[in-house]
Amino acid sequence: MAEKWIDGAGLAAKLREEVAAGVKNIARQGRAVHLTAVLVGSTPAGELYAQRQREACEAAGISYELRTLPGDVDRQTVEATLAALNHDTSITGIMLHLPLPRHLDATALQYQINPIKDVEGVNPANIGYVVYGHTLIAPCTALAVIELIKSTGVMLRGAEAVVVGASEIAGKPIALLLSEQMATITLCHIATRDLAAHTQRAEILVVAVGKPGLITAEHVKDGAIVIDVGINRITLADGSKKTVGDVDAEGVYPKVSRITPVPGGVGPMTVAMLLKNTLRSAELLTSR
Amino acid sequence: MAEKWIDGAGLAAKLREEVAAGVKNIARQGRAVHLTAVLVGSTPAGELYAQRQREACEAAGISYELRTLPGDVDRQTVEATLAALNHDTSITGIMLHLPLPRHLDATALQYQINPIKDVEGVNPANIGYVVYGHTLIAPCTALAVIELIKSTGVMLRGAEAVVVGASEIAGKPIALLLSEQMATITLCHIATRDLAAHTQRAEILVVAVGKPGLITAEHVKDGAIVIDVGINRITLADGSKKTVGDVDAEGVYPKVSRITPVPGGVGPMTVAMLLKNTLRSAELLTSR
Repeated sequence: MAEKWIDGAGLAAKLREEVAAGVKNIARQGRAVHLTAVLVGSTPAGELYAQRQREACEAAGISYELRTLPGDVDRQTVEATLAALNHDTSITGIMLHLPLPRHLDATALQYQINPIKDVEGVNPANIGYVVYGHTLIAPCTALAVIELIKSTGVMLRGAEAVVVGASEIAGKPIALLLSEQMATITLCHIATRDLAAHTQRAEILVVAVGKPGLITAEHVKDGAIVIDVGINRITLADGSKKTVGDVDAEGVYPKVSRITPVPGGVGPMTVAMLLKNTLRSAELLTSR
Repeated sequence: MAEKWIDGAGLAAKLREEVAAGVKNIARQGRAVHLTAVLVGSTPAGELYAQRQREACEAAGISYELRTLPGDVDRQTVEATLAALNHDTSITGIMLHLPLPRHLDATALQYQINPIKDVEGVNPANIGYVVYGHTLIAPCTALAVIELIKSTGVMLRGAEAVVVGASEIAGKPIALLLSEQMATITLCHIATRDLAAHTQRAEILVVAVGKPGLITAEHVKDGAIVIDVGINRITLADGSKKTVGDVDAEGVYPKVSRITPVPGGVGPMTVAMLLKNTLRSAELLTSR
C-alpha cells in the first residue's frame, strides 16, 4: 500500500528552497526582501513565535525585523506605525501579530496594511480580491491547504469538497479558494444539523475547528482526501502532552486515500506559505 | 392555500419608505444624503438605467448626480474623479456604473472608492468585511436575497442552503451572507457534477446563474424556499418578449413553500437595497 500520509514537512522544505531561490533572484536585481512584524504587548509566547519566524525568514534570505509596541499602545500609534511601514520602500512585507490586546480592533488595523505588503493576506481587501477571483495575497493557511490538496494530484474542478469550520481566518478563505478552483463546496460549522451527512459526501474534507477527535471514521467517505487544519495540545492519561488535529487520524486512516498528519501537515506548510507570500509581495513591488 | 409568491415589490416599497424616513431624520440634523454615480461612456441603456436610479433616489429624498466620463477616458482620470468624490464631504455615496469599457479594470477602480461611501458594497474591502463578519456595506443583490428569505420567517441558523451560481457579484456574496447567518451553505456552479443531488437537499435554494429554465421541479425539495436571482429576456414562440428567471416557476410552484416571482422579486428589492445602503453610508459618515 502506498503511503497515505501527505508529507507537509517535506513539501514545506521544497517550498522554502523555491522561496530562497526567488529571494536570490530579487537580490540580483539589487533589491532586498524585508519583512517587518509588529508585536503589540510582549509575551514569552509571542517572542518565541517571532523568534521562530525570524529563523525561518533568515534561512530563506529574507531579512526580518520585529517592532515591539507596548501592550497599552493606542490605536493611533499602531496606525501611524503601519502607515510608516507602508511608506518605507525598503520594507516589502508587513505583518501584525495576533492576538492583539482587547482595546485594539484587529480587522480595522489589518485594513491599514498596504494590500501588496500584507504578507498574511488578512487585509479585508485581500480577502475581497480572493472572492473576486483576482487573488493578490491570500491567507497563508488557506494557501497551504490548497497546495497540500494539489500535491495529491486530485482534480479540484468539480470535486465535492466539504469544509468544516467557518472561521474568518481559516474555513471561509479555504472554501473561497476551493470554489475559485471550481470545486463544489459545502461550508459546515457549529450550527450544521447533520455534520456526518455532509462529510460523508466529501471527496475532499478539510477540517478547521480546533476540536480534537471531532471527525471519526464514520464521518469519512471511502477514498477521501482529508486535510486536518486543527492544532490542539491535549493531555494524555499518563499526564504527558501531545499535539493532535481535529481528526481521529488513526481511526480514519484505513478509509482515506490521503491524509495530513498533525504535526507535520498543514502547520509547516502555513509557515512556508508566509515566506512565499513575503517573496510574492516583494516581487509585486518590484514589478511596479 | 396561502400565497406562495414572495412579494418583492411590496417589501421593496416598504423598505423605500423606511429609507425616506431615515433620510428625513438625517436632514433634521442639517445633513443631506447625496449619491454620485459615475458612468463611463454614455449609452442609451446606461443613461436609462441612471435615469431610473435618479427617480428612485429622489423619491426617497436622496439627491442624485450623474457624472459622465468619455468612453476613452484613461484610468488615472477615473481614479482622480473617484478620489475627488471620496474627499468631498457633501457626497455621502459613490457608485460606478458597470460594465466599464474594456481598457478599465472594474475591481481595481472599485477598490479606490472609500469603503464607507461604497453604496454598492463592491469595494473588495467591503467583500472582505463580509467574510470577517464585520459587514460595513454589503452588495445590494446579496442583501436583497437575505431580506427576501427573512421575510418568510424561516430560521436561517442551521438551515440547509444551496446557492447555484458562484459569481463574484451575486452567488459568492450571497453564500457568505447566508453563512454569516449560520446556514450550512453549498455553493454550486458550472463545474458541479450532480446539481440536482445538491438542490434536492436545499431548504433554501438561491439561483443566480442567468439561464432560463435551469431549475425545474425535479431539482426542488418539497417545502423549499426558492429565491430566483436570474433576470433573463426571452423570446416566446409568437415573437413577443418576456422576462423570466432561472427557475421554471410554474413547474416548481406546487412543491415549494415560498418562491420569488420574476419580475417583481429580487429585482425591486435590489434597487431598494441600493437606497438603503446609500442611507447607511450617510449614517456611518454622520456618526464619525
